[in-house]
Amino acid sequence: MAENVMAEMNERWLREINWSQDGLVPAIAQETGTGRILMVAWMNRDALRETAESGNAVYWSRSRKRLWRKGEESGHVQRVRSIRLDCDEDVILLEVEQIGGIACHTGRHNCFFRRLDGDQWIEVDPVLKDPSAIYGHQAAPAKGAQSE
Amino acid sequence: MAENVMAEMNERWLREINWSQDGLVPAIAQETGTGRILMVAWMNRDALRETAESGNAVYWSRSRKRLWRKGEESGHVQRVRSIRLDCDEDVILLEVEQIGGIACHTGRHNCFFRRLDGDQWIEVDPVLKDPSAIYGHQAAPAKGAQSE
Repeated sequence: MAENVMAEMNERWLREINWSQDGLVPAIAQETGTGRILMVAWMNRDALRETAESGNAVYWSRSRKRLWRKGEESGHVQRVRSIRLDCDEDVILLEVEQIGGIACHTGRHNCFFRRLDGDQWIEVDPVLKDPSAIYGHQAAPAKGAQSE
Repeated sequence: MAENVMAEMNERWLREINWSQDGLVPAIAQETGTGRILMVAWMNRDALRETAESGNAVYWSRSRKRLWRKGEESGHVQRVRSIRLDCDEDVILLEVEQIGGIACHTGRHNCFFRRLDGDQWIEVDPVLKDPSAIYGHQAAPAKGAQSE
């Protein structure tokens, strides 16, 4: 009983978040040191709790409808240095160390590799490693499958 | 007619975005130079088009259901240096110069001023200017009203 009360009290920080109707919030992963934005994914309550407890970034995969422990297939784990919350309590900002230096399922450092140039999106960051080498011999994951 | 065709062609970059069912995508504003994340808000097609054309950040206010030209009340305009798109085409990243050095409606530099410390969110960044001085003599805007 006392343990339940303690656990309940300790989860107040999770209740302070304005979860969407789907029980999710967007989470930004920002690389420590460089300050570069690596990716944006989604978290539910379990993902955020496990992220805080384990020190590794855990997201909620909307396509696979399950917890997504970042790096579980690629090895590209994100070690979490800090967790921040915005003024509306509906966006999470992670400061992370990106193991392997690759966050994106396309094999790039980060997911924001296209920049608007006039009226065209142009790719401005290189592929660092072939996705088939990251994810084994099967074909690279379908768009969106790895990235969230 | 030829003009319509031209305009249609020129808008292809907007059609490449995976807008949500509500016609929105999240947009991150990152400060040029410091790399700090200032805020996250939402954009619809009109907001993104106007952002690209005007060079100032324009968002869609979900609470007010209208275009929100950042700084229209506060003067804290965001000058846009670059616009990036992620691998899933569903998140926008703006590199901006934050006029006035204040992005958050609470009068802070940015919206991510709380950091998780154990099981508590603690405020780690100061208020730089009283919101009542930013938004005139009326009370500070309700939570969420200015921030999106």
